[in-house]
Parts: sequence; structure tokens; C-alpha cells
Amino acid sequence: MRTELVTTIAQMREWIAAVRQGGRSVACVPTMGALHAGHGALIERARAAADVVVVTIFVNPIQFDRKDDYERYARHLAADREFCDARNVDAIFAPSAEEMYPEPIATFVDVPDLATHLCGAFRPGHFRGVATVVAKLFNIIQPDTACFGEKDAQQLAIIRQMVRDLNFAVDIVPAPIVREPDGLALSSRNQRLAPEQRRMAPVLLKALTEGQRSIAGGERQAAKAIAAVLRVLEGEPDIRVEYVEIVDPRMQPVDSISGDVRLVAAVWLGSTRLIDNLLCRIAGSEPNATYFGA
Amino acid sequence: MRTELVTTIAQMREWIAAVRQGGRSVACVPTMGALHAGHGALIERARAAADVVVVTIFVNPIQFDRKDDYERYARHLAADREFCDARNVDAIFAPSAEEMYPEPIATFVDVPDLATHLCGAFRPGHFRGVATVVAKLFNIIQPDTACFGEKDAQQLAIIRQMVRDLNFAVDIVPAPIVREPDGLALSSRNQRLAPEQRRMAPVLLKALTEGQRSIAGGERQAAKAIAAVLRVLEGEPDIRVEYVEIVDPRMQPVDSISGDVRLVAAVWLGSTRLIDNLLCRIAGSEPNATYFGA
Repeated sequence: MRTELVTTIAQMREWIAAVRQGGRSVACVPTMGALHAGHGALIERARAAADVVVVTIFVNPIQFDRKDDYERYARHLAADREFCDARNVDAIFAPSAEEMYPEPIATFVDVPDLATHLCGAFRPGHFRGVATVVAKLFNIIQPDTACFGEKDAQQLAIIRQMVRDLNFAVDIVPAPIVREPDGLALSSRNQRLAPEQRRMAPVLLKALTEGQRSIAGGERQAAKAIAAVLRVLEGEPDIRVEYVEIVDPRMQPVDSISGDVRLVAAVWLGSTRLIDNLLCRIAGSEPNATYFGA
Repeated sequence: MRTELVTTIAQMREWIAAVRQGGRSVACVPTMGALHAGHGALIERARAAADVVVVTIFVNPIQFDRKDDYERYARHLAADREFCDARNVDAIFAPSAEEMYPEPIATFVDVPDLATHLCGAFRPGHFRGVATVVAKLFNIIQPDTACFGEKDAQQLAIIRQMVRDLNFAVDIVPAPIVREPDGLALSSRNQRLAPEQRRMAPVLLKALTEGQRSIAGGERQAAKAIAAVLRVLEGEPDIRVEYVEIVDPRMQPVDSISGDVRLVAAVWLGSTRLIDNLLCRIAGSEPNATYFGA
């Protein structure tokens, strides 16, 4: 059966009500479209978690701090629909900006403690926009499960915090980062890279791996592990580093490493911003499934 | 059948799931307890709107700007339960503060444009706390309908804005202010008034009525209608005025009156704060049902 394309909130609610009537469970995969294998992994997780899978495709204006980034963001609904068809997605919810924001929005969901540093420091209002639109999508679709990628680790931590704090009846399921053969994390933004930038981009994972190795080798000072990452990145003069940090499960930067941490980084290649991260497990530390996934 | 008393979120979700299984609709009446006839009117509205009525009783710490006010707030669960029993309320949801906030909350729902003036200017963070706890209650109970009193006009406007902006599938139903025979709006805080303060308190409605009369008589300058209110209040030297304003449906103060407006006021009698408001209809103006109720 072809993936149903739903573009209005009223239609989406009706469609979901019919699914619920039949006693079926719903998993949703919130995306901004331009779907790639990373989204494919999320769809697989969603499929395993529920009877019915809804992919939302919405380039959310209120999470963009720069208008040009919003306008340049890749939009390929026809290709996205084929992508979903091929993966037996039951419905795509692809509302217009006017449908989601018929008037300027006055209500915001914010997780300030988790949202004002790392990516949040460089993209003011970004995570407030993300949390707000995810709350809207959860209220429209009322899914049992929602799947988010670990590439956007700060976003994942914020959504989990929001779900816990506001008692959304939604199970948040993460999916690991999907990478190109050369290690570059999949992202809709990768298609903006010029060929020589694309050749350079895998240095980000290489650098993070160096930091991970130093921690695995016993390094417990965050600054030293970060320095190991930076040394690799500095070898590539066209890379501009936005941040490299080591954070705890609540995405707070740590000075000394005593439990599982995540090495997170954002860099620029020309006008394209890339993010990536690696989980660094400390032998003997409690796995923190609540935040970091299995 | 006796009103069911539910104190945990998990039990509440189970109870609601059973109701839903039976195909019954749910109306909820969020309160902080110390129930009075004003709440009784809300319960009646709820009963008319849905098959099952849930009254929530929760003195929400994050909406109090002053710790002493939180601690002094009246708590009478046994009496509240009898009140609900007598009105055939199906369930009371009365969680502890620890149940609602097992860890310090990090996520907030805010409607800054509607929340930073009037009561919000004098009670910083108050409406953020209200919107956040109402979002939590909506997510726990998932009601079809929720009833709020018009006495808290700013709160009602904020909840409506939040529901619209975040797409909560909840119909917000207002109920008019219920008054004592002498005109004092019912409030759980009235019981704190000393006898001589209680005798003085009806001057608030008397003053607002004077403003309403001046508008009905053709006054279109907000400042002059407000002055009419203040003249009456100034006749009572023990009353301290916090604010008197004339606001539009979005609770924004207006200078000149061209459509339906609300006269809103907050005053202090000793250490007790009283609020009240009156709708002022302008003949020929469109009734604004979305904000102001029928």
C-alpha cells in the first residue's frame, strides 16, 4: 500500500483516530525531510516498536536562527515520499508552515539548562524551536513511540527531558548514527559540501576517534582528551571548529571523566556546519540507558 | 458511587485508559483544592461536556513566586473529597509535589507575550508555572475538555493560547465568576480575610462596576474608565491597588476602547491579594467567543 500523504492537522488527527479505533499502536519519526539512510534506521526502529509508522516532514521555521539556512534547507518531498514508500511507512505528515503556524506562535517549550550551551550557544532559540515543534507534533499525532537519531545528541537529551518533565505518554527510542563508508555522519546538510569539502569532512570522526582513544587509554582530564581531538582538526586548515566538548548524560560539560561521557563537536566547512559525536564508555561505570541509549 | 481518589500518575493513566476503553469522554477541572461554589460551577460545566469528570487538586509549587503564599495556601483534601462526592465527580487526581516533580523540573511552557504584565508583572514566573503544570496534567489525563474559571482571566487567556499554539486536543470551556451575595468573587484566598477585611472586600466589584458603567455610558478612553474604578477604590484606605487595567481579548492593555474589553484588577487587603474582572461589551462589536467565552 502506498504511503499516505497527509498535509493538514485535521486530516492527521482523523487518520490517527482511525488507527487507534483499530487498536493499533503508532510510532512517529520527526524529520525535516531530505531523507537519507540515517532516517531509514529511525524508520526501522519505529517499525519494530509499533504497528503503524508516521514520518513527519516539516522544515520548522522557528528552529532556524538564520533565515538563509532555513531557505537553503533541502526540500525533496517527491523523493522523500518514494523513500517512505520503499520502507512501508504508513503515513507522511507534511504540513505547510502556515498549517503549523497559522498565526505567530506565542507559546514556547524550553529546556534552558540543556539548551543554552553547545549547539544552543551558537544557534540561539534553536532548541526552543525544536522542543516546541516536537510538542506540537506529539499533540497532533499522540504517538506511543518517537524515534530520534543520536547524531543530534543534544536534541535527543532535550526531547527526553521534555517528555519526562511534561509527562508526555511517548516512549523515546534513539537510533545510532549512520555513517558513510569513510565515516562522515549522514546529514541532509552534507549535500551542500563542495567535492573538496566532502573529501575533508571525514576528519571530524577521525578527530573524535582520537579523543575516544585517549579516554579509552585512561585519560581522565577532559581538556587533554579535547586537545587530542583539536590536534587532528587543526591538521585541516579549512575546518573551523565551533566547539569540542565532553559532556555528561545531561549534556553538561565535565572537567574530569568519571563515568560514560559523550565527545561532541561542531565544525564548519565553508558555510556548511557539521556535527558529530561519540559515546565514550568507561569500564565499570553504570550504563546510563535513560540518556545514552542501549 | 464514591469519587475515586487517585494519587499517582501511573494509577491516573490506568484509570483514564479504562474509561477510554469504554468509549467514554473525559472532562477535567484543574484546581488547587479548597473547593468552593466557583469550582462547583466548573464541575457542572465539565459534567455537561463529557461522560466522566476528573477534578485535579494540586497546589503547584512552581507557580508560587512567594514561598509563604505556597505554604499558607489552604489544603483541605477531606472536605474537597466530600465536595466532589456530593457532585458525582468520578475521580480526584491529587498527586504529591514529589509525584509531580520527582526531580527539579527543567522544562517550561511559557507564553511570554501574555504572561509578563498584569498579574504576571507582580508574580514573576507565575504563569510559566501554571502553563507548565497544566501541560503536565493534560498529558497525564488527556481530557477532551478542561474547564477554567473566568475569575482568572489572564490564566484562561494563556491556557487557550497554549492549547491553540501547541495543538493540545483539548476543548477549553470557561465558567463565569461565582460571587458571594455581596459581590465578592469566590476565591480560596477569601478565607484568609479578617472579618473587617471581609466586609471591605466587595468594594472591588463595586469599583469595577463603576468602570463598566462609564464604558456602557460611552466612555472610550481607557484611562478615564480606569480613573472611575480607582476613585471608588481610593474611598477604602485599607485597600492597596496593584493594578487596574482595561485589556483586549489577548489581555493586552488598550488606550482606547473600540471592541469588547475586560476590566481587570488586583488589590491587596492586608496580606491577602484579591483579583476580579468584568467583561465590558460594546454594542455592535463582534463577540469574541474564542477568548471571552459566550
